[in-house]
Amino acid sequence: MDTFDVHYRITVEPGTTLDEKVRGICLEQSVELPGSLVEEALEQRVVPRPVHSQQLSDDCWRVIISWPADNIGGEVTQFLNLLYGNISMKPGIRVEHIQWAKLPSGLFQGPAFGIRRLKEQYGWEKRPVSCTALKPMGMSAAELAERCYEFAAGGVDIIKDDHGIANQRYAPFEERTRECVKAVERAARDTGHRALYFPNITGEAVDVVTRYKQAAALGADGVLLCPHLSGLAVMHRIAQSSTKLPVMAHPAFSGSLTIQPDQGFSPGFLYGELWRALGADFAIYPNTGGRFSFTPGECSAINKAARSDESSFRKTFPVPGGGIHLENVGHWIETYGPDTVFLIGGSLYEHPKGIRYAARGFSEELKKSHS
Amino acid sequence: MDTFDVHYRITVEPGTTLDEKVRGICLEQSVELPGSLVEEALEQRVVPRPVHSQQLSDDCWRVIISWPADNIGGEVTQFLNLLYGNISMKPGIRVEHIQWAKLPSGLFQGPAFGIRRLKEQYGWEKRPVSCTALKPMGMSAAELAERCYEFAAGGVDIIKDDHGIANQRYAPFEERTRECVKAVERAARDTGHRALYFPNITGEAVDVVTRYKQAAALGADGVLLCPHLSGLAVMHRIAQSSTKLPVMAHPAFSGSLTIQPDQGFSPGFLYGELWRALGADFAIYPNTGGRFSFTPGECSAINKAARSDESSFRKTFPVPGGGIHLENVGHWIETYGPDTVFLIGGSLYEHPKGIRYAARGFSEELKKSHS
Repeated sequence: MDTFDVHYRITVEPGTTLDEKVRGICLEQSVELPGSLVEEALEQRVVPRPVHSQQLSDDCWRVIISWPADNIGGEVTQFLNLLYGNISMKPGIRVEHIQWAKLPSGLFQGPAFGIRRLKEQYGWEKRPVSCTALKPMGMSAAELAERCYEFAAGGVDIIKDDHGIANQRYAPFEERTRECVKAVERAARDTGHRALYFPNITGEAVDVVTRYKQAAALGADGVLLCPHLSGLAVMHRIAQSSTKLPVMAHPAFSGSLTIQPDQGFSPGFLYGELWRALGADFAIYPNTGGRFSFTPGECSAINKAARSDESSFRKTFPVPGGGIHLENVGHWIETYGPDTVFLIGGSLYEHPKGIRYAARGFSEELKKSHS
Repeated sequence: MDTFDVHYRITVEPGTTLDEKVRGICLEQSVELPGSLVEEALEQRVVPRPVHSQQLSDDCWRVIISWPADNIGGEVTQFLNLLYGNISMKPGIRVEHIQWAKLPSGLFQGPAFGIRRLKEQYGWEKRPVSCTALKPMGMSAAELAERCYEFAAGGVDIIKDDHGIANQRYAPFEERTRECVKAVERAARDTGHRALYFPNITGEAVDVVTRYKQAAALGADGVLLCPHLSGLAVMHRIAQSSTKLPVMAHPAFSGSLTIQPDQGFSPGFLYGELWRALGADFAIYPNTGGRFSFTPGECSAINKAARSDESSFRKTFPVPGGGIHLENVGHWIETYGPDTVFLIGGSLYEHPKGIRYAARGFSEELKKSHS
């Protein structure tokens, strides 16, 4: 029988034992019946079982549970349900790692591009990549496009919409995409540097698919998507579709899964492993020291999972955002290495000499770092 | 300018103030820039502002923030982003209530049926409703249909698939739906009682829409959906479509949003208010005292929000599940009242005299409770 392993970190509450809690998880996430009601043949066929455990502290263990692959039925949604459906309502259970290679082939296919192909395509082989965000919400498409031109003229590699710029009347999707594509093309004529523009296609799943195609038709270079708003499965769908634009994933609405240390998904698992499996070419995450609360260790774990050679999927660019500015970007380049996209938003807007000047400083830092 | 209020419970960390934290939320969730960079006209147009605050304890406040309705742009996904996108990655922020009546009309339309219409349609006017789950995963469609027949013959009102039974080869969606519809029809011929059958249509959003139509075409009476697996917006889409089957929502994969007391969504807000707005005719939630961890107060808050007259949406049936069995169902009927669907799963399967006998006992408890 085909099986695959899931690594959980399990905290055991007073009054129960590790064995009881693990058995509870195995039953809850498969037959959803007391074990005494499950016949032996069915137990063998569908109930997962623990295969390894290691004590981490007084009340905390790493436990590897082996799952029958047939329980997935070929669907990303049922895979997520099996992994963390009902047990999301129980405390003290965190998913940390999955044995991806043992999953049914085709269930997950990973990024359509990946780091190597994108670096070759855009000449980024020897250096990290710069990224910024068009904002704020409330500006017109023309105003956003003007900012887009300034960033492009300043040499930024990737200009993405802010994730909160959706399809409001301020700057509707189609008009905004058209104007911003024109802006990066105009900047290319003026300066010789062609920035990439990634519009935000987040919306209901059916609209994501439509906007992904529209973005390609309008000449955009990639797309931004918040998979936790649109549904995780739709990210995989577009990454595997015949429209070929790289996908940048944004963590909006995902935080409840990752910020509680004893439940949900570890940041490395969610933003590194799972998003990579689901086809994100770029994974934006809140960098340590910024407005949000990940630790340096959690950030390295995301980078490691996104770029690990152990996985057979193409590699995902980690995109740390927050807490990075012109004065310290050198430190972050040293720390995270050249296979990284650095996202600087607010601090470029704050620069007293304007965003084109700030963008130029940012681009130069990245180019000189590995020359 | 059209605005609507959102009620947050905010815990303030040492070293910061309530005003700073609230201002941070308002900027983060709109312009995503420091306030000093936002011109006054734009601030007025797009940045939300606090309109009321009430201290609840040393470090905790209820704060009402007023939002510009134009920031939503007519999309459920951007509404969720505005409500809790980036701030999901910050601790100490919980959404508790929304002023639904002030939202743009048509954005949310609520349940297509609602409690009153379902009670009239099925003759449930004077009593609560019984529901059970077909399981376990791993059985064939024929085996599940046989159990479905037994429950139906025992008089259960609604028989739903277990939420983990998706489209696995054990019992594929279409075959299972066809067999179970036949089973409830056969039981109706044999006993005079026509149970309702709700297959699980959870899957990728595009498959949800297809299976919803298929379920109707195959003669099912409603559907089960896990909106947190398939995407919240698709629940609203099917509830507003021309196919007319009631929708029962299941909380799988939602727990990280609700089980941490100082962040996410209060259970009353998520399973009561938001699911009702999104079109759930039935809202399953983990009852207090069961395998999961909600308090009696949280359960009453869900019931209250689902059935409140303050909202203009049709009412949602609360469906407490877990911790309810034949011996105590009378207590829960007293506590939750007749406009409730009681979900009993495992304890019917455990009955020594078999599931038809157990189902009959369950049905009789409900019928006698308000006769």
